[in-house]
Amino acid sequence: MSLGRVTLIGAGPGAADLMTVRGRDALATADVVLYDRLAPTDELRSWAPSAELFDVGKRPGHHRVRQESIHDMLISAAREGRHAVRLKGGDPFVFGRGCEEVAACREAGVPVTVVPGVTSAVAAPAAAGIPVTARGINRAFTVISAHDPLSEEEFAALVGLGGTIVILMGVGTLGHTVEGLRRHGLPEQTPVGIVESAYCEEQRVSLTQLDRVHAMAARTGVTSPAVMVIGEVVRLAAEHPATGEATSSGSAAVAQAVAGAASSAMNLGAAPAARPPARPGVRAP
Amino acid sequence: MSLGRVTLIGAGPGAADLMTVRGRDALATADVVLYDRLAPTDELRSWAPSAELFDVGKRPGHHRVRQESIHDMLISAAREGRHAVRLKGGDPFVFGRGCEEVAACREAGVPVTVVPGVTSAVAAPAAAGIPVTARGINRAFTVISAHDPLSEEEFAALVGLGGTIVILMGVGTLGHTVEGLRRHGLPEQTPVGIVESAYCEEQRVSLTQLDRVHAMAARTGVTSPAVMVIGEVVRLAAEHPATGEATSSGSAAVAQAVAGAASSAMNLGAAPAARPPARPGVRAP
Repeated sequence: MSLGRVTLIGAGPGAADLMTVRGRDALATADVVLYDRLAPTDELRSWAPSAELFDVGKRPGHHRVRQESIHDMLISAAREGRHAVRLKGGDPFVFGRGCEEVAACREAGVPVTVVPGVTSAVAAPAAAGIPVTARGINRAFTVISAHDPLSEEEFAALVGLGGTIVILMGVGTLGHTVEGLRRHGLPEQTPVGIVESAYCEEQRVSLTQLDRVHAMAARTGVTSPAVMVIGEVVRLAAEHPATGEATSSGSAAVAQAVAGAASSAMNLGAAPAARPPARPGVRAP
Repeated sequence: MSLGRVTLIGAGPGAADLMTVRGRDALATADVVLYDRLAPTDELRSWAPSAELFDVGKRPGHHRVRQESIHDMLISAAREGRHAVRLKGGDPFVFGRGCEEVAACREAGVPVTVVPGVTSAVAAPAAAGIPVTARGINRAFTVISAHDPLSEEEFAALVGLGGTIVILMGVGTLGHTVEGLRRHGLPEQTPVGIVESAYCEEQRVSLTQLDRVHAMAARTGVTSPAVMVIGEVVRLAAEHPATGEATSSGSAAVAQAVAGAASSAMNLGAAPAARPPARPGVRAP
């Protein structure tokens, strides 16, 4: 029997059509698909018509499949001559444990390839109209997992770098993160955006500032997965991210921010705003 | 006449099939396409069959279209009721000046949407088998443009953060960058990978370490665009990124690195290795 292979696919930040063409093509030839809860799956049966499908990332309350079991399933399928696909939310190499899955396959002598995906670290802010970089405002962004609390060294470096800070897995440690950034000198008025369920029906964008974000998150019940973006670029958030259109105050705000002008006129209250998903193909011209 | 619209599309890191399905769908309805030199364009005529195509990012030696002219072209097309697409390499909001184009459209009252793309900052390292994050090795990565030389504060913060450093537009300032990182305490043996023309026929991956990278780059003639990745994750580079397969020494190296073991056995010489492009769909099972 000839050896099969394993493909890790980054499925993007949530919407079905934010997967790459290469990812879709690889799914079409899959014999087995192990998928995440963060990957889009409504149409999985049609994308991978001849594959066995396994949900290995069940929601809280259900037993999650152990990482080692995922490795075993991928390797076993490949050894049976099959094409095993691991479909993961976002990009496999951004906090996706893709590294471990690749290593396990290599150790087992199974061919493994990675199809990169649109990472939520960049795309979730974009769903709210927030660019992670903007000429004249910043030239760096850091993506960091706050699943475990950040250290003093990390806080100092993040503040010292002066770039955009994108925090993943940070809902549980939000208070600690905010306090650390303030203690290390990040101004209290630094704008903060939180994007929940980017590109999905239930997308919600909350815009606030550093000294208000913890109270706001508690009040409005921000839940995982959420992407938090901290920095001056948050001032560029679209007022209506569904279409990218801005009212006059919004466009003035954008112009101000791009010009590096003062932020006094910005609409950065503590109140979150519920937003429909951004779907450029839906709106008529 | 009804108002048209503008769509900014992130075309991904170079390969035609690393664009998103949403990007392809938007191109199919384009009346005008303004494209970059970093975007894949060989099949652009078939993707946007009824569009006028404009190359606005000509290669060195040709006159580049000014940013303001790009804004004017997008806005004019939309005002004529057309669907104008701006096709950009990577992601529009990662050093792509997408922010300015969005702002210009909003200022002009033209509807504008952004389709995120696979950013080269993550995907170019992945093309070499290098994950930007790996459990047990790091939990942060910073993407920074070194088009202008980095500052002392930036060097200090990058070293202090302890995460992966991804440098874009850094070929011209490579010596300054390396010297600054060393001066601020980044160990001389820190592994460095440089990926040129990721996912294209001419992809080249060079693996070395911090104190050798400048001489290596000069000797082998590293040219823009190149993505440089610095950090322990570089030890995870696949020996044969075309397939993701590793020889026994390669897989041992991966296991070592994942286990956080010593690096003495790692294959991190100064010699670069030319690699064919990574195309998971090409190889037979």
